[in-house]
Amino acid sequence: MKLLRYGQPGAERPGLLDATGTLRDLSMLLPDIGPAQLSPRTLSALAAIDVSRLPPVYGTPRLGSPVGGVGKIVCVGLNYADHAREAGLQPPAEPVLFMKAVTALSGPHDDVRIPAGAVKTDWEVELGIVIGTRARNVAKAQALEHVAGYVLANDVSERAWQMERGGQWDKGKSHDTFAPIGPWLVTSDEVGDPHAIDLWLEVNGRRVQNGSTRNFIFDVPTVVSYISEFMTLEPGDLILTGTPAGVGLGQKPAPWFLKPGDVMRLGATGLGEQVQKCVGG
Amino acid sequence: MKLLRYGQPGAERPGLLDATGTLRDLSMLLPDIGPAQLSPRTLSALAAIDVSRLPPVYGTPRLGSPVGGVGKIVCVGLNYADHAREAGLQPPAEPVLFMKAVTALSGPHDDVRIPAGAVKTDWEVELGIVIGTRARNVAKAQALEHVAGYVLANDVSERAWQMERGGQWDKGKSHDTFAPIGPWLVTSDEVGDPHAIDLWLEVNGRRVQNGSTRNFIFDVPTVVSYISEFMTLEPGDLILTGTPAGVGLGQKPAPWFLKPGDVMRLGATGLGEQVQKCVGG
Repeated sequence: MKLLRYGQPGAERPGLLDATGTLRDLSMLLPDIGPAQLSPRTLSALAAIDVSRLPPVYGTPRLGSPVGGVGKIVCVGLNYADHAREAGLQPPAEPVLFMKAVTALSGPHDDVRIPAGAVKTDWEVELGIVIGTRARNVAKAQALEHVAGYVLANDVSERAWQMERGGQWDKGKSHDTFAPIGPWLVTSDEVGDPHAIDLWLEVNGRRVQNGSTRNFIFDVPTVVSYISEFMTLEPGDLILTGTPAGVGLGQKPAPWFLKPGDVMRLGATGLGEQVQKCVGG
Repeated sequence: MKLLRYGQPGAERPGLLDATGTLRDLSMLLPDIGPAQLSPRTLSALAAIDVSRLPPVYGTPRLGSPVGGVGKIVCVGLNYADHAREAGLQPPAEPVLFMKAVTALSGPHDDVRIPAGAVKTDWEVELGIVIGTRARNVAKAQALEHVAGYVLANDVSERAWQMERGGQWDKGKSHDTFAPIGPWLVTSDEVGDPHAIDLWLEVNGRRVQNGSTRNFIFDVPTVVSYISEFMTLEPGDLILTGTPAGVGLGQKPAPWFLKPGDVMRLGATGLGEQVQKCVGG
């Protein structure tokens, strides 16, 4: 299933995209797509309904993050060897973790706001994991049972804030609009193997990132199990799994950063596409 | 006012501590103490009620975090020069920020769980700021208007995870029970000057931390204004403002870390006291 949330920011309604590409409303069945709706039981019940009987949504409404009520966003840094190289860093011996503020979440096609004072705003196409059931010290072999599905994500980053303003990365990762998610939450059964997903990103029509989750240093079970040692993952929590090479910081002969007016377009196999225009703070 | 939440974890009810030290129930007036109840308007309305008419709560119920629905916990690192020295680090030129997972929140007297595999679990008594209204790019001169009140906090930290497992601190700050908050949210009007608060912490009866918010490197308006440049602060968000000298890592002649059976007792002028027993993971 492809679950989504549509409508104005803060007033999104639950919906799904059916096999014919029609957006259908779920608000008579569910109050939202969020922590209380992501359990295997609720997702199975949803999968059993005859979606052709759900009311279609006409027009092209704004899409929000396909997951509401997100409790935390845990991010894995440097999870592709080629990206670690371009950042001038060694591939890590174990996952590097940092967090993004939940206030950074936005819809897949919302504008990205380059904050006042920012000078090195950058893109990162990523596979996002959506947690479906509580995970605390889970073994790798059980880790996928805690995953409700996957999303496309852009881990927008202000590099100067991330790396030149006191050492901890969170500062450059958390501005409003720095976490576009969606268009859909695609459930695990539909995604199949999360390690066979191609990811790409273009800026102003130029392809800058071309990667595949085949090249993860740490795969999905490893990442979920690892994080669950350090903190409890709750339904609706998001994990962003890191980005392949081709970010602005790594461009040759010189880094290339985002400016108002630039347009990012990104996609991932089976997870849809996002388009964001960059605007001033 | 001293606002609080009492009852079992996940089922806390709102209450307050009146001037005579009696715990009184607020659940007929408010659904919770959380983001929707922290605005100046709601707090003024609460301040106007005759608390002697609220039903007293008998016995000594468990206290939870005095703020529910916390969206994020932003922490300031190295905000006291004496603590920076004991950690072997320079006082920072601008605030160091990191985050704690909201799943780390616990009540002021709940057990602290030393996780499996932890070897350097440590204490940090801190002043916590509770945001009352949205703060985005606020100037220092207006910053205090966005503060609903203050809490006592223990920023429990696993140092090996924080500093020896890949570089970003969040990993060692986010285990369940690593953020005891309370006993009360004390509103700004009652706290008065947040830069005249003494903070102390004892382990097994031995005083290890003795500090004062007079010695902040970055004061409350600076911290709130600064964070609001990088991310939007929402009602119910918490800011932990850093710890004074005397953490386990800084003990002489050798560092001293927590073990199951140890008891932490901590307090702050006007903000009450916490007692936590350490237990195995």
